[in-house]
Amino acid sequence: MKRFKLTIEYDGGPYVGWQRQDNGPSVQEAIETAITALCGEDQRLQTAGRTDAGVHALGQVAHFDMEAEFSADTVRDALNKHLRPHPISILEAQEVSEEFHARFTAKRRHYLYRIICRRAPLALERGRAWQVFRPLDVAAMHDAAQVLIGKHDFTTFRATQCQSDSPVKTLDAINVFESAGEIHVTTNARSFLHNQVRSFVGSLKLVGDGKWTKQYLQDALEAKDRTRCGPLAPPHGLYLHHVDY
Amino acid sequence: MKRFKLTIEYDGGPYVGWQRQDNGPSVQEAIETAITALCGEDQRLQTAGRTDAGVHALGQVAHFDMEAEFSADTVRDALNKHLRPHPISILEAQEVSEEFHARFTAKRRHYLYRIICRRAPLALERGRAWQVFRPLDVAAMHDAAQVLIGKHDFTTFRATQCQSDSPVKTLDAINVFESAGEIHVTTNARSFLHNQVRSFVGSLKLVGDGKWTKQYLQDALEAKDRTRCGPLAPPHGLYLHHVDY
Repeated sequence: MKRFKLTIEYDGGPYVGWQRQDNGPSVQEAIETAITALCGEDQRLQTAGRTDAGVHALGQVAHFDMEAEFSADTVRDALNKHLRPHPISILEAQEVSEEFHARFTAKRRHYLYRIICRRAPLALERGRAWQVFRPLDVAAMHDAAQVLIGKHDFTTFRATQCQSDSPVKTLDAINVFESAGEIHVTTNARSFLHNQVRSFVGSLKLVGDGKWTKQYLQDALEAKDRTRCGPLAPPHGLYLHHVDY
Repeated sequence: MKRFKLTIEYDGGPYVGWQRQDNGPSVQEAIETAITALCGEDQRLQTAGRTDAGVHALGQVAHFDMEAEFSADTVRDALNKHLRPHPISILEAQEVSEEFHARFTAKRRHYLYRIICRRAPLALERGRAWQVFRPLDVAAMHDAAQVLIGKHDFTTFRATQCQSDSPVKTLDAINVFESAGEIHVTTNARSFLHNQVRSFVGSLKLVGDGKWTKQYLQDALEAKDRTRCGPLAPPHGLYLHHVDY
């Protein structure tokens, strides 16, 4: 039995999310179907991050076990062949030891959120970034975001349906900066609560609009009250960027 | 009568090209239909560059005349509304004098060509860049490209169906460089021949592969012989970036 780590890029647009669900196609199902086509085995994927419907990945990580004797390069190429025409790409397959677990041994998840501020519709980046119709104060967003760093009870920024045992997490970094005419929000932590990044970005957008101050964001955090969160930023601006092990 | 200059972004994927043709939808037809929906007039667009099927634009320019009395901002917003759900966006509408002509008064056209070198399929940039399966020697491509600069008979790099009176053009700049994990080729000139940029990129790719030397490219240029051109680079890596007036 071999264990393979997969590094995966996908366009989340056509999917109900990473995880298999009854209401539509999932990224997990597409890759598991490709695995079965490759080796005839009915293997389940374990993943670093169960992205929501519409959320993209540049470097999602998952693992699975396989009885068949294939090299890592064959696994990558064959899965990509069987995945066609899905907008899902196996960037790398790597044989790993049984100690590796995509979810439990992940040390850090890195997310990117893309915002494009302009009035005209997005022709080329439609579905790939959050379009905001007015300019945002990027420096104010970055400054305010720093109050989120560290160990906190993030109840305010957690989906009500979040299944995590505890709302207490440690945020290691969050940066808001301009990049080639866009606003990028990058953040990383050992793990995130459900909707945590989109909750952060939705609230920081209100800071960028001048509607919230840094102090207001800090008060919202300390209130540990979901109703104090800004509107959730849309899924299509969010990318699971990479995962450290 | 008012003349409006439009700056336009589009995804060329769904279209037979800029120009109206009998064999499918064109960008020109989509925008002219939106103009008619706005003002009831049957106006024709003049454009800076008639992009081919699949070629994208980040800053295409076109102009048209209109009897109706609308402000530039209203023209932009109303055309964008009528263009839905086309992946075509009017970035700016600007009232200009009768001396302005999108094609004839353009001083310089700037193109961008995107190449992504990797083995795994493109999930997010599919249809937006040329995927090349092996690494290319970017420095060699840039160095070789410099032989193309200046006034030359570009017959080698010109489509056989090109309608330009003369194959002699002056290329002002061409640069090949790495940008965020991609290879970008940027080039500008007062005007280009049909397929000139894709012919350049297809030939430079052979330099990057080590199949052609700089001298071979120069010989191909000097041969003034279409059969000496490398294979045409695919349209979906090409972007009309902007136009100077």
